[in-house]
Amino acid sequence: MIDLIKQYTETRKHTESLCAPLFIEDYVIQPVEEVSPPKWHLGHTSWFFETFILIHHKKGYKLYDENFDFIFNSYYEGVGERVVRHKRGDLSRPGVQSVYQYREYIDQEMKELFSQYKTLPDHLAILVDLGIQHEQQHQELLITDIKFILGHNPLFPVYENFTEDWIIKDDGFISMKEGNYEVGYTGNSFCFDNELEPHKVFLGPFEISKKLVSNGEYLEFIESGGYQDFQYWHSEGWSWIRQHQIEAPMYWHKDGKHWHHYTLQGLQRLDPDLSVKHISFYEASAYAEWKGMRLPGEFEWEAASSHLRWGERWEWTNSAYLPYPGFKKAEGAIGEYNGKFMVNQMVLRGASVATPAGHSRVSYRNFWHPHFRWQYTGIRLAR
Amino acid sequence: MIDLIKQYTETRKHTESLCAPLFIEDYVIQPVEEVSPPKWHLGHTSWFFETFILIHHKKGYKLYDENFDFIFNSYYEGVGERVVRHKRGDLSRPGVQSVYQYREYIDQEMKELFSQYKTLPDHLAILVDLGIQHEQQHQELLITDIKFILGHNPLFPVYENFTEDWIIKDDGFISMKEGNYEVGYTGNSFCFDNELEPHKVFLGPFEISKKLVSNGEYLEFIESGGYQDFQYWHSEGWSWIRQHQIEAPMYWHKDGKHWHHYTLQGLQRLDPDLSVKHISFYEASAYAEWKGMRLPGEFEWEAASSHLRWGERWEWTNSAYLPYPGFKKAEGAIGEYNGKFMVNQMVLRGASVATPAGHSRVSYRNFWHPHFRWQYTGIRLAR
Amino acid sequence: MIDLIKQYTETRKHTESLCAPLFIEDYVIQPVEEVSPPKWHLGHTSWFFETFILIHHKKGYKLYDENFDFIFNSYYEGVGERVVRHKRGDLSRPGVQSVYQYREYIDQEMKELFSQYKTLPDHLAILVDLGIQHEQQHQELLITDIKFILGHNPLFPVYENFTEDWIIKDDGFISMKEGNYEVGYTGNSFCFDNELEPHKVFLGPFEISKKLVSNGEYLEFIESGGYQDFQYWHSEGWSWIRQHQIEAPMYWHKDGKHWHHYTLQGLQRLDPDLSVKHISFYEASAYAEWKGMRLPGEFEWEAASSHLRWGERWEWTNSAYLPYPGFKKAEGAIGEYNGKFMVNQMVLRGASVATPAGHSRVSYRNFWHPHFRWQYTGIRLAR
Amino acid sequence: MIDLIKQYTETRKHTESLCAPLFIEDYVIQPVEEVSPPKWHLGHTSWFFETFILIHHKKGYKLYDENFDFIFNSYYEGVGERVVRHKRGDLSRPGVQSVYQYREYIDQEMKELFSQYKTLPDHLAILVDLGIQHEQQHQELLITDIKFILGHNPLFPVYENFTEDWIIKDDGFISMKEGNYEVGYTGNSFCFDNELEPHKVFLGPFEISKKLVSNGEYLEFIESGGYQDFQYWHSEGWSWIRQHQIEAPMYWHKDGKHWHHYTLQGLQRLDPDLSVKHISFYEASAYAEWKGMRLPGEFEWEAASSHLRWGERWEWTNSAYLPYPGFKKAEGAIGEYNGKFMVNQMVLRGASVATPAGHSRVSYRNFWHPHFRWQYTGIRLAR
Repeated sequence: MIDLIKQYTETRKHTESLCAPLFIEDYVIQPVEEVSPPKWHLGHTSWFFETFILIHHKKGYKLYDENFDFIFNSYYEGVGERVVRHKRGDLSRPGVQSVYQYREYIDQEMKELFSQYKTLPDHLAILVDLGIQHEQQHQELLITDIKFILGHNPLFPVYENFTEDWIIKDDGFISMKEGNYEVGYTGNSFCFDNELEPHKVFLGPFEISKKLVSNGEYLEFIESGGYQDFQYWHSEGWSWIRQHQIEAPMYWHKDGKHWHHYTLQGLQRLDPDLSVKHISFYEASAYAEWKGMRLPGEFEWEAASSHLRWGERWEWTNSAYLPYPGFKKAEGAIGEYNGKFMVNQMVLRGASVATPAGHSRVSYRNFWHPHFRWQYTGIRLAR
Repeated sequence: MIDLIKQYTETRKHTESLCAPLFIEDYVIQPVEEVSPPKWHLGHTSWFFETFILIHHKKGYKLYDENFDFIFNSYYEGVGERVVRHKRGDLSRPGVQSVYQYREYIDQEMKELFSQYKTLPDHLAILVDLGIQHEQQHQELLITDIKFILGHNPLFPVYENFTEDWIIKDDGFISMKEGNYEVGYTGNSFCFDNELEPHKVFLGPFEISKKLVSNGEYLEFIESGGYQDFQYWHSEGWSWIRQHQIEAPMYWHKDGKHWHHYTLQGLQRLDPDLSVKHISFYEASAYAEWKGMRLPGEFEWEAASSHLRWGERWEWTNSAYLPYPGFKKAEGAIGEYNGKFMVNQMVLRGASVATPAGHSRVSYRNFWHPHFRWQYTGIRLAR
Repeated sequence: MIDLIKQYTETRKHTESLCAPLFIEDYVIQPVEEVSPPKWHLGHTSWFFETFILIHHKKGYKLYDENFDFIFNSYYEGVGERVVRHKRGDLSRPGVQSVYQYREYIDQEMKELFSQYKTLPDHLAILVDLGIQHEQQHQELLITDIKFILGHNPLFPVYENFTEDWIIKDDGFISMKEGNYEVGYTGNSFCFDNELEPHKVFLGPFEISKKLVSNGEYLEFIESGGYQDFQYWHSEGWSWIRQHQIEAPMYWHKDGKHWHHYTLQGLQRLDPDLSVKHISFYEASAYAEWKGMRLPGEFEWEAASSHLRWGERWEWTNSAYLPYPGFKKAEGAIGEYNGKFMVNQMVLRGASVATPAGHSRVSYRNFWHPHFRWQYTGIRLAR
Repeated sequence: MIDLIKQYTETRKHTESLCAPLFIEDYVIQPVEEVSPPKWHLGHTSWFFETFILIHHKKGYKLYDENFDFIFNSYYEGVGERVVRHKRGDLSRPGVQSVYQYREYIDQEMKELFSQYKTLPDHLAILVDLGIQHEQQHQELLITDIKFILGHNPLFPVYENFTEDWIIKDDGFISMKEGNYEVGYTGNSFCFDNELEPHKVFLGPFEISKKLVSNGEYLEFIESGGYQDFQYWHSEGWSWIRQHQIEAPMYWHKDGKHWHHYTLQGLQRLDPDLSVKHISFYEASAYAEWKGMRLPGEFEWEAASSHLRWGERWEWTNSAYLPYPGFKKAEGAIGEYNGKFMVNQMVLRGASVATPAGHSRVSYRNFWHPHFRWQYTGIRLAR
């Protein structure tokens, strides 16, 4: 129990430390629907503890502010009305200071709740753990959303000395034999419902690359006309790059002859040795096609993972985000967590520089629509 | 070879016989993007033979009309510019008669091509077969597009005495054991690239329903408030039904107390015993959730198919449309056939009353976006 | 009364003669919202007589078909539900033949109604006259809509030997003195409510061109970069040409070096001496600005009209479409005719080659949104 | 000259004092395209002095920041690229403090420029005057934009003790005789180009109301079903209220039985005696129609103005925003000020509680699209 309380406290503090380099102004805006204002993340992660724990499990708990319930709900239909997602950036109030006060209030109340138990009962421990995991997911979003907000500003402001770089020098491929493999989560700690049940899958023989595709390799694809040749692309990917006039990864800028890319340390000259990032599934898939290879399936990735160095970038797989055999949604609003997104999204495996430690495990299934690329996403090849 | 020529001739005639009951006016319109004008289907299926066979393989072949190449191309990027898909219904010319003349010209030229060989060489036979298969796919679309055109007209015109009804009385479920199963096409006749390579998959134990969900059963879902309760729906499905104010399958109309549905024989009183049809994946999935069950995966379906009566309706599976291990696109424009659609679509298995005979096989993979429902689509449950 | 009946008969026949050169296919489509299918015009003009005359004034009149009331209503809110305007082209039924039968029925019934009177009572004569005027307006739309349908087809089909050409050789300007002028309709025949009340306006001194701007003159504007220089354009006009990539009048096509334009006689080489046509208000205004002049006001036009040759093209004025002092809407649905459009539209004066004789008078006020150009619209300069 | 410098200083200070009650967060957001972030107004008004005066007329002037030129340009095509208007709210940087530093820098530079002259030469005086007028216009927008930002927040925050209320008790109408009237600006001080040339207009006899329509009177219109009856509405107005589900003026909220409205002092109970405000042209026009009257023309208003109490609310007229006879755009970018908006907008006369003193004159022509209502707009009747 002490560990959980400690983890709670550290997680909450870490979220705030991620915002420390921000201007007040940076907390407020939402340049595109999928990028939420940092102050919304701060409020929403607190709302989660209030809504799913304090209201139900702390006697005499007094709601902090009825309006916050409306403002900081994300997509939980079962919990009531909410600000439409693309309008989060229309709200200048509550101000940043008020949101921090809200966090303090929640932390104080949680602390009191913890103090009422010698040992946290299981049903509460599970919820607290989920709230921590939830906040950690938002920590990753906070970083990528901050990067979007600053990286789409013509002044290209520096966030701080946050390193996004990663190089794997290992060339070559791992060979895997055909056979039945066990996939899914089998441990005793926290996992999401989408990692269950663990189950067997049959895989044919395959090879998977030891390293991720580098900026330099991706540049070859660009320079060979990859964005101009439909044959490498899914039909919807081809429409997407033409409609949005996409000709390079997100954050890349060509300044005369030289390519630069925006990083959280500011605009920098592109280093060809680093792994390419901010890639959509469409681009990852087109690159693989151009190379005469393919993306791995999520179970191939999982089966081979012990032989791979990973954790630098989320890696697109060619697997759609679907339930495992025996998948069960949790009861009530908590059950809205994952299952309802299981259509039209692709699975990513691994983790990124923005991923909190607790979110790195071989069974972890991240998922995004195939055109999203503001996350730290990269490419590993298979064949 | 005689068989192939005979099949060619019969397929071409059958396409025209499907249009026989139409008014000239019905040939022209395109009420929504995915429903093409019947005269476009007539032209496009001929264009396919012209573009992929006659131009390359018949010496001295004279293009029928340069403009037709532009007008009747569908989505083949490799073959040149084309009329934007949603503008097919903006073209009153070429007139219906001209399109039939185009068909005649192509048939005449194909006949001459055939007459030049005692035995059709393999590379040609393969293309002719593909052209026939392609035209058969459009025969199915012709029926569903005609149904859309007539069924969305306030006069609800009758097409002809085309029977859409099907009843399976078998109650209960088939039990399947866990194990490795072989899936994919293993025969010697035609199949699409998306059915290859045949491969092994591991399946856990499951049960699959002997019959499809009936109108009466689906009505219970409606009447119990299924369209008003978010918890049964994918997040995108919920948005979709609310945005389009969907509260019943396509073609259903409530007239005071009674439900009617439009069929190709006109508007008819709903028969609760018939299998429900014109269902989106979202609705199929929500129904299954409401029943406490799920949709089968495509390999579960294939593994169990020999124990099932099927062929009445396309059956939504909970499998995304993805390539099989070892999938290879054909060279050139023909290769644009299937692979580029392998994202954001769900697999349907089985066949429907509108499916030509040659398109019914257990390895056949149909696929649509999850919101489409103008095809004859239904629901089989699994658990 | 005989005159009115004769006029009725001739008007009705003329409408049908305009459609004589069409294919059945041409009657059905609606490539853009503002272009209605020809069969809709045929039905709607008949519906007008049925709805405003036969139903109320012919004893025992039997509605032809309830559905037609729904299908052929245009925008009369007071008369009931109707097919949404941009979906007129989604209806293949009623077929063209049925629509002609509907016309016959209405004509027969009108004839019987006429036969019941020696002299048509005033209230009926007024309505019949309005119905005739209404149908004449649709005759003009029929021509321009047919031109749109054929002229946006890649085959550029010929309609018939319809002459659109007009040349005025008179150079120079008419000088008008300052003073109070009488404007508005003062005769005893039919006029629309928007031409009343006649009233006095004060005009300063001005000059107005004897001729309209020619193709050749307009080409100079294009070639001098007029479409690339924002300073000639209204802000909304500039957005409009950039969004729609407009660089020439509607129906102009550059084939290598030479300009062609689509006419109802097919695609033709551009004649620089002819008056330019199919011009939006934005383009007319930008041209005038480029010339260092301006468009005339509608009262300037009216005041000078007796000195001008006009009738070849609708001429954009720089006057917004607003009510005259003392303007009164008619009672009931007929009152929806003009008044409710008096915002965001600009007045055009004159007439065009497509205008029926009865619609040419100096007080006539045509009006369109400033971006419309599928009518025969041209430019007269003032200063 | 001393007056102009004093006026410059006071205007600049007043702008900042309007922002004094804001949170940093309030400076940043742009909930709808037409509402700019307050910090954008602060920057843009400074940019105006920099771009049109300092760069050209102060020797050795050093541009403050190249990026600011891009960020704070509004719509001046002639001056270069700019941030797309609806994306002003996507920029968290430059921060509020930086924008105030920019203002300081500009003020310092302007002060130095002033100090170089004993008497400001005419061409400079004219530009300084224009810059002041421009900033005053933005002062009004600042207030209405702040009201929008706070008034659309679910917390309904208070701005400060800013009084929006106004009551005129004078009942009855003023009668005006027919005749020629002089309109337009005839003084020697500043006026906009759109107020010139002064000219004669002929007006028929009319009556114009002494007071504006009150909340109570407007409530009668609502309660009698005015928003549900198409016959009072322009066709485009009717579409607009249905599409946006508009049933009351902006900022009105019904709480059970009682109507409240948001004011800059917070949410308040509706006072039926106050003049109604935040009304679109469509609503003003529908109200007048319902009353059996009409809106005045802009020249009627101007002719009668000496008999009226006005200045509380901008009053919609039924006049389109068009150039006066002899209208001339200024040379260069300054000429983009007014003329290019002269289409699709309606004229408002008078002034509002948010209008700076220098902007109240009888010849002043305000203009907005007919659906805008976040300005202080009201209704005066005529007949």
